[in-house]
Amino acid sequence: MRAFLALALALLSTPLAAQLAVLSPGEIIARAPAADWRTIAPSDLLVMDLAPDATGKARRVVIQLMPEPFGQEWIGNIRKLAAAKWWDGLAVNRVQDNYVVQWGDPEAEDKAKAKRLPAGMAKPSADGYYLLQVKDYRAPPAPRPKIDPYSEAYAYQSGWPVASDASGSWPVHCYGMVGVGRDMPPDTGTGAELYTVIGHSPRHLDRNIALVGRVIEGIEHLSSLPRGTGPLGFYATPGERTAIRSIRIGNEVGGLPAFEYLATDSASFTALLAARTNRRDAFFVKPAGGADICNLPVPVRRAQ
Amino acid sequence: MRAFLALALALLSTPLAAQLAVLSPGEIIARAPAADWRTIAPSDLLVMDLAPDATGKARRVVIQLMPEPFGQEWIGNIRKLAAAKWWDGLAVNRVQDNYVVQWGDPEAEDKAKAKRLPAGMAKPSADGYYLLQVKDYRAPPAPRPKIDPYSEAYAYQSGWPVASDASGSWPVHCYGMVGVGRDMPPDTGTGAELYTVIGHSPRHLDRNIALVGRVIEGIEHLSSLPRGTGPLGFYATPGERTAIRSIRIGNEVGGLPAFEYLATDSASFTALLAARTNRRDAFFVKPAGGADICNLPVPVRRAQ
Repeated sequence: MRAFLALALALLSTPLAAQLAVLSPGEIIARAPAADWRTIAPSDLLVMDLAPDATGKARRVVIQLMPEPFGQEWIGNIRKLAAAKWWDGLAVNRVQDNYVVQWGDPEAEDKAKAKRLPAGMAKPSADGYYLLQVKDYRAPPAPRPKIDPYSEAYAYQSGWPVASDASGSWPVHCYGMVGVGRDMPPDTGTGAELYTVIGHSPRHLDRNIALVGRVIEGIEHLSSLPRGTGPLGFYATPGERTAIRSIRIGNEVGGLPAFEYLATDSASFTALLAARTNRRDAFFVKPAGGADICNLPVPVRRAQ
Repeated sequence: MRAFLALALALLSTPLAAQLAVLSPGEIIARAPAADWRTIAPSDLLVMDLAPDATGKARRVVIQLMPEPFGQEWIGNIRKLAAAKWWDGLAVNRVQDNYVVQWGDPEAEDKAKAKRLPAGMAKPSADGYYLLQVKDYRAPPAPRPKIDPYSEAYAYQSGWPVASDASGSWPVHCYGMVGVGRDMPPDTGTGAELYTVIGHSPRHLDRNIALVGRVIEGIEHLSSLPRGTGPLGFYATPGERTAIRSIRIGNEVGGLPAFEYLATDSASFTALLAARTNRRDAFFVKPAGGADICNLPVPVRRAQ
């Protein structure tokens, strides 16, 4: 009752214009002007076509690769693998509930059977995992309070969420982010085994595994796959795997639609952060007064 | 390189006993003594049997209902619904990626077609959503730093994660938590429409929707369902729904195994929190130094 009264009083003391200006996150995105959207270069897209589902329906997953100023070591390898059609005929091997979906070579662990990597792959050093990936990070002008358990502050850079502390900044493991599978250090991954997050954001992986992009369309083709019953969610039998028909860089894919993201330095994005932090749409009775960075995703859509 | 040296130096300066004491979260759980586990009363379990999958495999989802001191208003209604076999023949109607799976009466919105509720259902007031659900909450002895964007502090009470501020405390929307679907306030839910979280924890729902429990086994039968293509992830056609065979309270289900959770006031749980906050197992090169409450789940398993 106390809270209800507080809400009623707040409404009474708010000017009418401000009340009308209370837009939901969805409305803010829908009304964002064209100038606030940035087209994603097709050369920064990675398109994975899985084998059709049981009803014959196509399953396409579109990934946006991180552009500069994010580190490009692994992304360079991924471009080489796609150009070599290396993933074609390989598979989704692992689906662990509330964690990750992983794809690549099911025999990667067996040196005798592992598929040979293309020539010219870079071998990012073990140090690469410890080093921070974002170059030229600029902290937000007004530092946010320390409300991120995993860093000193979080912000957005070039359309991507990043966390930071005195030592630098790094991209973060939110739902749908794509990273580079690896074994124990210093045996670092090459980019041939990739995964995406399908559960609560495993932020403890930040700075421990290299992130290279995010799924921007079709994640349901991965997140709704049957969970693996082997250790770590690997499929117990080959028949359970989902085959990869092809993985290509976007400008090699005919008829691919253009995609765009909401500029993270735009007024629309600032309004979106505020609306998500204190939900004022009719459904909500208790605005949170805060939000974690993985509940503040950057909107991405087909270009309008 | 700098970080690698720091790690190497840390290992050199750590006594051997402490190095041996570095257990992974999984090892801490496996070694927790029997005295640190608490049996869950079968009367606090809600067992949902879905129709078998396409291959004929059974699909059982086991939910632990919140005990006292958590509010029991909606849980009382859920007990009545289960006793009346009200859900039998109804369905999973909504699967929204990175958000929720919801089940109940597909016609709930249509007063002419909606299935009649059993007699004697409580009607929790609109205030019920604003009021805090946890009675007799005791703050942890040493308040944690403000690292939760959604509250002043988080802690564990009677085996459940809770957040708090000066006004009180409340359970939180982590992966697998079960809540009560509702329309706009003050038209509050009855407990007949339930949902569980299958994505990044939507903590902005805390204190806006009543939580009643958590899925402790079989969540993959919900999280791997095809996503709905209608608004909010509702299925566009009835044929896409998954039928519910039955929902019962645990002591009505023959042959149900016993379940137990790791006591949140035990030494094992304290060690587990520390290990998850600063991962020291071999895979990790950069311990996070923090963790959000939804990455610190309470272990639940079949009783050993």
